[in-house]
Amino acid sequence: MKEKILILGADGYIGWSLMMYLGIRNQGPVIGIDDLSRRRIVKEVNAKSLIPIKSMDKRIKVYQKVFNKKNLTFHHIDITRSRQEIFNENKSIFCSTDMMSNRSLEGILVEHIPSVIIHLAQMPSAPYSMKSLEHAAWTTKNNVIGNLNLLWLMKEFCPNTHLIKMGTMGEFGTPNIDIPEGFFEIEYKGRKDTLPFPRQAGSFYHWAKVFESQHTFFANKIWGLKATDLMQGVVYGVTTDESKKDSRLASRFDYDGVFGTAMNRFVVQAMCDEPLTPFGKGGQTRGFLNIKDSMKCFELYIKNPPKKGEYRIFNQIVEQHRTVTELAEMVKRIGETKGYKPVIQSIDNPRVEMEEHYYNVETSKLIGLGLEPCDFEEEIGRMFNDLKPYAHRIKKEIIRPKINWR
Amino acid sequence: MKEKILILGADGYIGWSLMMYLGIRNQGPVIGIDDLSRRRIVKEVNAKSLIPIKSMDKRIKVYQKVFNKKNLTFHHIDITRSRQEIFNENKSIFCSTDMMSNRSLEGILVEHIPSVIIHLAQMPSAPYSMKSLEHAAWTTKNNVIGNLNLLWLMKEFCPNTHLIKMGTMGEFGTPNIDIPEGFFEIEYKGRKDTLPFPRQAGSFYHWAKVFESQHTFFANKIWGLKATDLMQGVVYGVTTDESKKDSRLASRFDYDGVFGTAMNRFVVQAMCDEPLTPFGKGGQTRGFLNIKDSMKCFELYIKNPPKKGEYRIFNQIVEQHRTVTELAEMVKRIGETKGYKPVIQSIDNPRVEMEEHYYNVETSKLIGLGLEPCDFEEEIGRMFNDLKPYAHRIKKEIIRPKINWR
Repeated sequence: MKEKILILGADGYIGWSLMMYLGIRNQGPVIGIDDLSRRRIVKEVNAKSLIPIKSMDKRIKVYQKVFNKKNLTFHHIDITRSRQEIFNENKSIFCSTDMMSNRSLEGILVEHIPSVIIHLAQMPSAPYSMKSLEHAAWTTKNNVIGNLNLLWLMKEFCPNTHLIKMGTMGEFGTPNIDIPEGFFEIEYKGRKDTLPFPRQAGSFYHWAKVFESQHTFFANKIWGLKATDLMQGVVYGVTTDESKKDSRLASRFDYDGVFGTAMNRFVVQAMCDEPLTPFGKGGQTRGFLNIKDSMKCFELYIKNPPKKGEYRIFNQIVEQHRTVTELAEMVKRIGETKGYKPVIQSIDNPRVEMEEHYYNVETSKLIGLGLEPCDFEEEIGRMFNDLKPYAHRIKKEIIRPKINWR
Repeated sequence: MKEKILILGADGYIGWSLMMYLGIRNQGPVIGIDDLSRRRIVKEVNAKSLIPIKSMDKRIKVYQKVFNKKNLTFHHIDITRSRQEIFNENKSIFCSTDMMSNRSLEGILVEHIPSVIIHLAQMPSAPYSMKSLEHAAWTTKNNVIGNLNLLWLMKEFCPNTHLIKMGTMGEFGTPNIDIPEGFFEIEYKGRKDTLPFPRQAGSFYHWAKVFESQHTFFANKIWGLKATDLMQGVVYGVTTDESKKDSRLASRFDYDGVFGTAMNRFVVQAMCDEPLTPFGKGGQTRGFLNIKDSMKCFELYIKNPPKKGEYRIFNQIVEQHRTVTELAEMVKRIGETKGYKPVIQSIDNPRVEMEEHYYNVETSKLIGLGLEPCDFEEEIGRMFNDLKPYAHRIKKEIIRPKINWR
């Protein structure tokens, strides 16, 4: 693989893992951008990554040493802000816009003309977006305007670049019919058309993702951009083959009620003698995948790009047929083999969602590209081992949800 | 009718007409809010309302005299800004947030608890939103965040108020199947569900409207707000029964390439010996309605509110079976009876859209409420008469589109 890869959101759970994963597999540069807002907002809700994480600069230095490669770079940039805005604020320091090249998304695109852009620079938490009007508005602006900037700048400076954008399976909600990969052919009152699958998101965060997908679909249509849009399921897991090499290469691991996701929180609950807490009836069904499978998917998209002017959607999940309660039972069972004594205790549902429903997601496109997923139960077992050294850092009081949708 | 009505966007083409229309029919107050941005952005693109318009204060004074009613009031407020933001900026002048009550949307809601809120406070132009990244971003932020603020504040301060929100038929695009009123029952792979109709908007402006509708649908679901969401067609016409009473009561009339809509621009072109200019093949079909019909629709929604927790969509159009070229021919024919000599000349399409397509919009719900629409051709004839006194103000050079989607 010889690409010029730009990763937006390079400091995140997936972003940093992906920097390394693609870094060691790519002959060309892998450039990371992040505004580091994730570190800030996790602190804001009094939470903390269970695994200590290093600064981006430190991580890159360790990567260079461990893998003997110098192809990773990082720039602290907020993609929602324009070059002109940043220049105006720094006029007294810099005398030409040329000197701004590494300080704005536009500058990076103009200077590097990446062949692949992976956009993960979204605020990623549903509860955070439901906390207050201010949180909902910030999430919407940050995610939607960041993506809009990116699309417009791609049109102007690198219209042939392959955009790989992070969406979420949550855009589709839980309809009573199968969920196709973005589009479906339907018959209505005797006529047929192929249309975008209806969106029914469940939080302001999920809606922001919908809006990004809709803008990307439109930008593709009017400007001929080529884009791969992932509807990713819930990611679980602690380490990748890369991050395991040195503890200073760890990616963040959130387990709190705001930024932690289902499986990651269940494992932490099992480890600290807190009940595993499905919401309400616990019949919710979602799509899941291991963080290592997520890495493989990105590699497959890069190696199998869309055609010029093509906008394609992948449903990026590998597990989907167990309810949340069944998953909690699985974690309990695996936890017991590790010497823990987990119990399961349903709690009031803070969300507005169906607690029992049909769920069947079409995923044949990823299988068609050759994805060979990890084994679910084996990986859950591995999580207990990976997290054990950090068990003393668990703060029980931050695990349960405190933000209510109503 | 005895309601407390709040109109957001009270200074606009429809907003001001509606202030008067509801003002004389309502026993209670009609409160208007606007940030006056429409006046500013029309100036920004070097255009101007063909009919001179007065300030909101002047209009209200004239209304009081002409109709002998004192129930209209106006507040210059930007609904995207919070009470706290405004207070912070004015701290030196005001010593308590109470004094801010008429200066923020929140203040107005808390003080008046309206029974009906009509939300028309959106930037309304597709070309404006396609002008640059900055215009697209501003449109998105202004429209989506304004609506989000409104929804959240309604939840907190007036959850039982009937929200009537302005959407657009353009949210649905031009699918090859009938367009239902927001939702449709479909069968896919042997299973059935009732789902939101897929959105395929054609500009960043139209997408912002989609996002507002999706947020409103969601807010209704989680907070039980009651909402009427209008997918309005293209409005044409100059005067209403109210604005005709005194020239100082005129609503704005835009005919330029950015803010003018199809029928309004055709009539102006016919009056100034400019060719009527369908785009491309001219086979585009859209839904239309007269501004007086738009007024009647709002009255019908108020008199027939949704149930608590109901979110309903109306396709608000009355004419839909002629192509743009056929409409140009109609205006030409009517113009000829008025002594003009219009010609039709297709121009390159600045938009990315299908120029020949199926179009069939379901509108039975409005008819069910009892709407009796104006006669299309008669109203076009009336437009020539209404605009004649202002013909000398036409600036030919601003009529043709200059903003290209590509």
